[in-house]
Amino acid sequence: MNINVILFPDFETLDVFGPVEVFGKVENYTIQYYSQYGGTITNQDGLKIETQKIDNVEINDVLFIPGGLGIRKEVENISLIGQIKQLAEKSRYVLTVCTGSALLAKTGLLDDKKATSNKRAFDWVRSNSDKVNWIQQARWVVDGKYYTSSGVSAGIDMTLGFVSDLLGKNTAEKIAFRIEYNWQSDKHRDDFWKQ
Amino acid sequence: MNINVILFPDFETLDVFGPVEVFGKVENYTIQYYSQYGGTITNQDGLKIETQKIDNVEINDVLFIPGGLGIRKEVENISLIGQIKQLAEKSRYVLTVCTGSALLAKTGLLDDKKATSNKRAFDWVRSNSDKVNWIQQARWVVDGKYYTSSGVSAGIDMTLGFVSDLLGKNTAEKIAFRIEYNWQSDKHRDDFWKQ
Repeated sequence: MNINVILFPDFETLDVFGPVEVFGKVENYTIQYYSQYGGTITNQDGLKIETQKIDNVEINDVLFIPGGLGIRKEVENISLIGQIKQLAEKSRYVLTVCTGSALLAKTGLLDDKKATSNKRAFDWVRSNSDKVNWIQQARWVVDGKYYTSSGVSAGIDMTLGFVSDLLGKNTAEKIAFRIEYNWQSDKHRDDFWKQ
Repeated sequence: MNINVILFPDFETLDVFGPVEVFGKVENYTIQYYSQYGGTITNQDGLKIETQKIDNVEINDVLFIPGGLGIRKEVENISLIGQIKQLAEKSRYVLTVCTGSALLAKTGLLDDKKATSNKRAFDWVRSNSDKVNWIQQARWVVDGKYYTSSGVSAGIDMTLGFVSDLLGKNTAEKIAFRIEYNWQSDKHRDDFWKQ
């Protein structure tokens, strides 16, 4: 299985690398990093990461879109949204973390679908795309091939949930144990939606 | 506060980027990435990260050492161990995640000190440095300026603990809430040591 991670300037660090830690523990999963123009992508945590150009994506198994401060700019990036739409349509699965769902929603592919997002930015996310059936109380939401999670750390729980759906709960639990992670495996439980 | 993250080939992804996510949320904390020779560091999750040369570290506030498969090689790297020893002596705090403590232990600076490490690699860690007072049951351990954590995800809990020690529990809890993370704030509780 090929995981295509989409990066952009000022992506949220853990949105990406929590899920990547989980994907990397699954046999025969490989991870590649893409951005609109390729080259080095930086973020607010001092990271400089090498990426390939998004046009170079060849195998469309999993499309992965993180959130972060940079999303505020990318939801206006018509060209990137077009590229993501193309890739998302071709991909077997599409996973977003945090405000990554706001960017995916801009493609229209989440219209009339259930999805969630960061609980601290929920009103902003909702204001961007009112055709999505936004679920406020959920650790993550699955609707067909679309997996969307709450903020930052929720991406780890969702990715373990994704592995569980595809390869069985035992496989997901083994990975959680190996990375000494207390997996919150109930996608409906959400400790962060109220406040 | 300046956080100097030491990278090496095949470092464990989440060992680094869980703590980085937390550090990045603290006002006036800046994060820089170093490696023995500088340049691009890669790991098993397809990452390519730009680093500076370890000789270029200027401000010695926090030295941060992750673990990972690559540690098995670095514990034989006399030159890197010497550089880490120098930096650790000068630093105000030294934090390790997972088998990062095995590398730090090679400097001798953990001799007669309490420390912990990954629970799946504990015997290997212990066999490397028998002068350390290795604590098997702990999410993380603090001994003076040295913070050492259990495997992978434990680094997030420890880093929140570090922020709590320095800036108050309220600050740590606010960060955990912001990143929608269920912080295990009790460093003595360890769900992973037995099995």
